[in-house]
Amino acid sequence: MPELRKDPVLGRWIIISKERKKRPTDFPVEVNSSIGGFCPLCPGHESFTPAEVLAFSEAGRQPNGSGWQLRVVPNKYPALIIEGELGKEGLGLYDRMNGIGAHEVIIETPRHEHNFADFAIEEMARVFTAYKERIIDLEKDQRFRYVMVFKNHGRAAGASLEHSHSQLIALPILPRMIVSELDGALSHFKYKERCIFCDIIRQEMQIKERVVCENDGFICIMPFAPRTPFEMWILPKRHSSSFYCQNERDLHSLAAIFSDALQRLTRCIPDVPYNYVLHTDPLRSGGLEYYHWHFEIVPKLTSIAGFEWGSGFYINPLPPEEAAHFLRQALEAP
Amino acid sequence: MPELRKDPVLGRWIIISKERKKRPTDFPVEVNSSIGGFCPLCPGHESFTPAEVLAFSEAGRQPNGSGWQLRVVPNKYPALIIEGELGKEGLGLYDRMNGIGAHEVIIETPRHEHNFADFAIEEMARVFTAYKERIIDLEKDQRFRYVMVFKNHGRAAGASLEHSHSQLIALPILPRMIVSELDGALSHFKYKERCIFCDIIRQEMQIKERVVCENDGFICIMPFAPRTPFEMWILPKRHSSSFYCQNERDLHSLAAIFSDALQRLTRCIPDVPYNYVLHTDPLRSGGLEYYHWHFEIVPKLTSIAGFEWGSGFYINPLPPEEAAHFLRQALEAP
Repeated sequence: MPELRKDPVLGRWIIISKERKKRPTDFPVEVNSSIGGFCPLCPGHESFTPAEVLAFSEAGRQPNGSGWQLRVVPNKYPALIIEGELGKEGLGLYDRMNGIGAHEVIIETPRHEHNFADFAIEEMARVFTAYKERIIDLEKDQRFRYVMVFKNHGRAAGASLEHSHSQLIALPILPRMIVSELDGALSHFKYKERCIFCDIIRQEMQIKERVVCENDGFICIMPFAPRTPFEMWILPKRHSSSFYCQNERDLHSLAAIFSDALQRLTRCIPDVPYNYVLHTDPLRSGGLEYYHWHFEIVPKLTSIAGFEWGSGFYINPLPPEEAAHFLRQALEAP
Repeated sequence: MPELRKDPVLGRWIIISKERKKRPTDFPVEVNSSIGGFCPLCPGHESFTPAEVLAFSEAGRQPNGSGWQLRVVPNKYPALIIEGELGKEGLGLYDRMNGIGAHEVIIETPRHEHNFADFAIEEMARVFTAYKERIIDLEKDQRFRYVMVFKNHGRAAGASLEHSHSQLIALPILPRMIVSELDGALSHFKYKERCIFCDIIRQEMQIKERVVCENDGFICIMPFAPRTPFEMWILPKRHSSSFYCQNERDLHSLAAIFSDALQRLTRCIPDVPYNYVLHTDPLRSGGLEYYHWHFEIVPKLTSIAGFEWGSGFYINPLPPEEAAHFLRQALEAP
């Protein structure tokens, strides 16, 4: 049974999820990879994944057969498991609970070599719709407090399979990053009675130098204090704390700007490895005035991550104003 | 001029330090490496570093000549620069200041291929003495609030030079990780009137399962909620919030346990890349009842860092109790 443990000083939760490989000689962990080999995410290989929890396909398809456009399946090697009690307990100073949660894989396309950045807008919108539907479903489980949605793209960013996919983890606790964001946003709201992200959007639209692109519904900016070169945030222009409250039109508009931003990024840096993480409000929070959902896209470009990762202190060699300038020009004719 | 910028939501400061390489085609950043080539840290190459700020050597040596055991020099490519005013200013919602600070390299040995884990205890104690002397010196500069000392060992952990060295950065702000630690420790102290790290040490000494090794003055444990396999903390058993208050005997005892811990780690995982970071109190804090200085050693073993790094949420495949068991056995005869 995996375990959730809390650092007593920082309040940071981590998952201890034992893999079969666990003797010291088995480290560094080699990623099992489909690159150049068998792909369990491809059509025809549905029996190599656990049974799907969601699929988008033509009418009349058999569940877990081929003929799908998108499938969501439980992770075959889950970090958390869905069955059981939370079993919260204290161990002296420490807090732990059972590693209860959901860990799912969103298989975003049937085409093995179809790069996410090259998806048509409809294909990308389908991915976001899948996120939304899974969050709505998982919210019903009262044990869960948060659904974290993320993508690892490229080996340097931790992707173990080449076939385009993202993941979600439903958690019985709030991740520390979200707690900090909620705290910071709430303290701004208490003082100003305004959402800090709405304030950021207004200021960025005025100054323009960190804006990468925008459309009717969304804006893509480089944050003022980015951790890495080309870090990008995509935010809805209209205040909303919950990703899953977006309607079909919103998700289409999100897909359009996401596609635009990734096209620019990959035009600048071909084959760029990156992670993105959806930042949204905790489950059942019922709409927060002070929080604003968004995506954070973090390219994995600098090799100096070790120290930053251990210390929480980042050194970024590229000012976001310059990075944004490069990306604004990226889709112009040469 | 480098720049310090604060994320308005999280309160996280980052350094924007432009390198000469900054066009998009220059990413990913290739590390300039001495591996197999010319080493600017070797004896005889003193003119390739900025003038030293500290050196340990036999009497009668010329400054910046050879014949040293340890040198501290300003970083040739500093993330922050020492000369100038802080120039704090607000930009609408945002806060920035000039990138004022010190960035120094501790060249730990004259011997190019001498691995830190294989240092004699006296050699390692000399390194810690250098940290102490530099912190005491930098504390006099009223612009600085914190000195962060760290080592990147191995390419995967961000080391760009093979020759054994560590670094320090004197900062005009407190890094977020330290703020969070201070906050967490203070809230425990307010409730219990005890240092949380002292409580952790007592509990770990009683339970023993996460203790790697100990001596009279220090204990090396695996934390209850480690971010990575084999994460280790080294703490003084006697309460102390300031690293630089340790006397010569303390630093010798620290070197002995540090050497022991690294020997065990490298016996288990040869050539392990790792980072360590000194966690100590802010400059001029005058001794805190609630905080406890320590080192955190974080091996870089899992390739899944991308997502964790972006989200602050960690998945660790190896329980610390098992890792500690491996390390306790590592120095026994086979």
